[in-house]
Amino acid sequence: MSDAPAPEKPQASAAPQQAGADAEAPTSKKGAKKAEAKAKKEAEKARKAAEREAAAAAAKKTEDVDLAKDNYGDITPTTKVDAERVNLKKLGEEHLDKTIRLRAWIQNARMQGAKMAFVELREERSWSIQGVIAASSEGKPVSKQMAKWVGGLSLESFVMVEATVKKPLEPVKSCRVSDYELHITKCYLIAPGPEVLGLSLNASNRAVGSLDDEEPTQPAELTEGVADLSLADAAPTASLLTHLNNIVMHKRAPVQQAIADVRVAVRKLFSEYLDSQGFTQFEPPCLIGAASEGGANVFSMPYFNQKAYLAQSPQFYKQYEIAAGRKRVYCIGPVFRAENSNTPRHMTEFTGLDLEMEIEDTYEEVRDMIEATLIYIFRGLKERCKNEIEYIRTIYPSEEFLLPEPGKEVRITFAEGQKLLREEGPEEFRNVSDDEDMSTPQEKALGALIKKKFNTDFYVLDKFPEGARPFYTIEDPANSNVCNAFDFMMRGQEVLSGGHVFICPESLRLAFEEKVSTLPVPASRNMSTYSGVQEFLLTVAVVSVWTESWHGT
Amino acid sequence: MSDAPAPEKPQASAAPQQAGADAEAPTSKKGAKKAEAKAKKEAEKARKAAEREAAAAAAKKTEDVDLAKDNYGDITPTTKVDAERVNLKKLGEEHLDKTIRLRAWIQNARMQGAKMAFVELREERSWSIQGVIAASSEGKPVSKQMAKWVGGLSLESFVMVEATVKKPLEPVKSCRVSDYELHITKCYLIAPGPEVLGLSLNASNRAVGSLDDEEPTQPAELTEGVADLSLADAAPTASLLTHLNNIVMHKRAPVQQAIADVRVAVRKLFSEYLDSQGFTQFEPPCLIGAASEGGANVFSMPYFNQKAYLAQSPQFYKQYEIAAGRKRVYCIGPVFRAENSNTPRHMTEFTGLDLEMEIEDTYEEVRDMIEATLIYIFRGLKERCKNEIEYIRTIYPSEEFLLPEPGKEVRITFAEGQKLLREEGPEEFRNVSDDEDMSTPQEKALGALIKKKFNTDFYVLDKFPEGARPFYTIEDPANSNVCNAFDFMMRGQEVLSGGHVFICPESLRLAFEEKVSTLPVPASRNMSTYSGVQEFLLTVAVVSVWTESWHGT
Repeated sequence: MSDAPAPEKPQASAAPQQAGADAEAPTSKKGAKKAEAKAKKEAEKARKAAEREAAAAAAKKTEDVDLAKDNYGDITPTTKVDAERVNLKKLGEEHLDKTIRLRAWIQNARMQGAKMAFVELREERSWSIQGVIAASSEGKPVSKQMAKWVGGLSLESFVMVEATVKKPLEPVKSCRVSDYELHITKCYLIAPGPEVLGLSLNASNRAVGSLDDEEPTQPAELTEGVADLSLADAAPTASLLTHLNNIVMHKRAPVQQAIADVRVAVRKLFSEYLDSQGFTQFEPPCLIGAASEGGANVFSMPYFNQKAYLAQSPQFYKQYEIAAGRKRVYCIGPVFRAENSNTPRHMTEFTGLDLEMEIEDTYEEVRDMIEATLIYIFRGLKERCKNEIEYIRTIYPSEEFLLPEPGKEVRITFAEGQKLLREEGPEEFRNVSDDEDMSTPQEKALGALIKKKFNTDFYVLDKFPEGARPFYTIEDPANSNVCNAFDFMMRGQEVLSGGHVFICPESLRLAFEEKVSTLPVPASRNMSTYSGVQEFLLTVAVVSVWTESWHGT
Repeated sequence: MSDAPAPEKPQASAAPQQAGADAEAPTSKKGAKKAEAKAKKEAEKARKAAEREAAAAAAKKTEDVDLAKDNYGDITPTTKVDAERVNLKKLGEEHLDKTIRLRAWIQNARMQGAKMAFVELREERSWSIQGVIAASSEGKPVSKQMAKWVGGLSLESFVMVEATVKKPLEPVKSCRVSDYELHITKCYLIAPGPEVLGLSLNASNRAVGSLDDEEPTQPAELTEGVADLSLADAAPTASLLTHLNNIVMHKRAPVQQAIADVRVAVRKLFSEYLDSQGFTQFEPPCLIGAASEGGANVFSMPYFNQKAYLAQSPQFYKQYEIAAGRKRVYCIGPVFRAENSNTPRHMTEFTGLDLEMEIEDTYEEVRDMIEATLIYIFRGLKERCKNEIEYIRTIYPSEEFLLPEPGKEVRITFAEGQKLLREEGPEEFRNVSDDEDMSTPQEKALGALIKKKFNTDFYVLDKFPEGARPFYTIEDPANSNVCNAFDFMMRGQEVLSGGHVFICPESLRLAFEEKVSTLPVPASRNMSTYSGVQEFLLTVAVVSVWTESWHGT
């Protein structure tokens, strides 16, 4: 909690000491922290209660009759505000001096003297506007008590206001709607915010601070990749656990909503493009009778008298669709991996975007379809989520993602990539070979070279050397040293791998015997590989057509 | 297997007896059935192998040189057919006498004499065309051997053909493309069908026969609702288990593909309409830390050192989104119910279509939004899935679903419904009361009356009597005998229930104390209801806005 104070409502700093005496004796560091937080909260509550009582007493003393009393307070089933409802994002010159109705969150509230208050009203996402409430000399429509009540509203309370649209003296920098302000004439509380927020909007709207919270004993490498996400400035951030424990405040942050908007846009763009290319959506099951992939990272559970598994991939179900003659299919849905790793690259549940298609003639059809799909998504995001991406970049800084011009997609062979590295890359890559797989530093260096030469962060690397790919990948008929396999690269990192695999069980068996069964592997591993092959043979026999797939975010 | 013979390729009827002697002594009815099936399969294999050998020997004897040998056979990586690829659904007059390329499934194949064969080629869904192959006197491009090979292809083999488009002498009734036929000049086998299909396309394309297969000991009521789905005619049907055990053949059936198309259209229409109404899609989790609803029908599983549950509903997550200020949200995804019931109404995994919205003024906003969404989906299906629905009706007969004219949606109050029943309904409903909930027969009778009066199968019944709804439903301010709760009715059956619930924890507690805590319920149930209320209070306090939701297919 202490890492996320509400900016304009500082915590009572003396509180922990005062309340500490009542707290249970802390038995651990964790216990102490909790007790401290609890004491703080109690003290803050007491302070607020005292303030309210004082305000109520003062109100009673100074004015017996509140002429504005019907214009504020808790909302009731009969409360009605008749003014026109206007969405902040549609507010314009035509609304000047008009009275409108708005429901919004109190993003900030402060008194200015005894008769006037300023609030920031956030309607949705980052759409906020400044509200002003000032008591008039006659005590209506706004009284001193009313202004005080509005100025004292808890942060993140949800209110209904009636207000007149005015021009502010100068643009309000702290609000997205900066050219107008609202002069409040009615204000009703629909849902109060808590007295102390577990996560302030300010902290929630910053980069997640760390992956560990009350478990600082975790090895440092588990937080790998997070450090560079947090901003350099000293603004308060909250840990992932604090975000998760305050999920509503997490989700109220404009940056989280922008990220959610981008996620959904990716789904829609994926679906839109594939629909236009003759694909059909299908619905694979999540609950299945056997693990989709080998390995231990599968969730299993009792299923009546049997056992069920959560799908790690819709792979087999995509292949069933193709074998069933659906030609081109895609699906969007959850996939599950029992990976107990606290990194941003491991998740136990994520949304998979999967496609599967028949190949008419060559595997390039699939390669090009995936390339076109990704480029369509990236271009679409730039257009449709321009504001969201700009906003996200203010919190998670990143450079513009460079895309190739239409018709100038960059596809190079592995050998061309290695040549480029030898000729124009760093000294250490002078002697890289066309027959050995690339290392991560090589990939990054090549990414930088491609960006310099072609002005793109996205390209395809094709025709990998045979040894770098699994035995079931088919070799290039034109060059038996390489195979029909590709990687998709973004900023020098592989994001997707694909290849042309044997369709005919007999060819697959021959390839296996030639390339795998002669390797000096322990008998047990050999067996498991072999049983993998048998399963694969079976699948291929069922599927019977050349397919390729991709799953990502 | 015996319930699904391939229509044009009858099983060798003598097989079971001949092969039975070699089979293991059957120890049970199930074992005997399996042994019989196995023996049948073996005999069929032997017969086919003998046929092939005889054909090969005959071919060798009569003609030494097959001038068409490059025009048929197994496909190889170097096989190439250069003719233009044309989709059957786009085949038109402009293709007459042109040579085209097609990949298709052998839906039927038969010899006509020694030199000619007819095949039905199915490209996708129900798009099929007749193919003709006839040996020419010079033995090329088609030889006698080639015609025989094509006519002998196993059902459901996948082939690539080159053919000339011709007009048939008369329209081909058995194929969807009836105005053209293909004169085959090349035919390559991409993937052979099995010698005996576990489920023929014919059986797969009929209504599922029964829910039980080898488990005939299940009580009859478990199959309730299935009987009226199977057609009256004597055509072979297969049990659900046979369908599931032959999933690829199940999915190849045009009727299953039509159903899948309609399902996906429903998803798209739902999403399309809500997008147009300012809704945002969001992604709720499937793996959650606590059961979404009370009751035993939740799947649970080990989650590292903890326990996880599969979401029975995205309810809480929808409410989080609203509490987070997202205003209007929807989601489409799997939900899970651990219901071990073999009926068409119980499924352990299904696709949920969920929406949640803030109410501005009254609950009618939600009622009308859901009504409009459903009508948009129903209208959209009639337009976009006209052919699919027509096709499905040939197998699962149903009447046209009547919808109200735009602007003439039927919404009646519960009291109006009861009045209609009293005045115009069957004798037995002369005295139905406005204060008691309707029985199922009443609902059906009212559905029939509404259909007669308003020509619609779809209507909304609003303002239920207080006693018919849970205590947390708010009463109508204009009439305290009824509450703001509605049912959506389709063909006299409730498909969706909704209502206006208390927002304020205090009002909810009062309603609970007044209406529930005085009921003579056992202490334990009372406690659980009460703890449900506390949970509910918490949710309401967090959510703070009036919301309503729907989840269906």
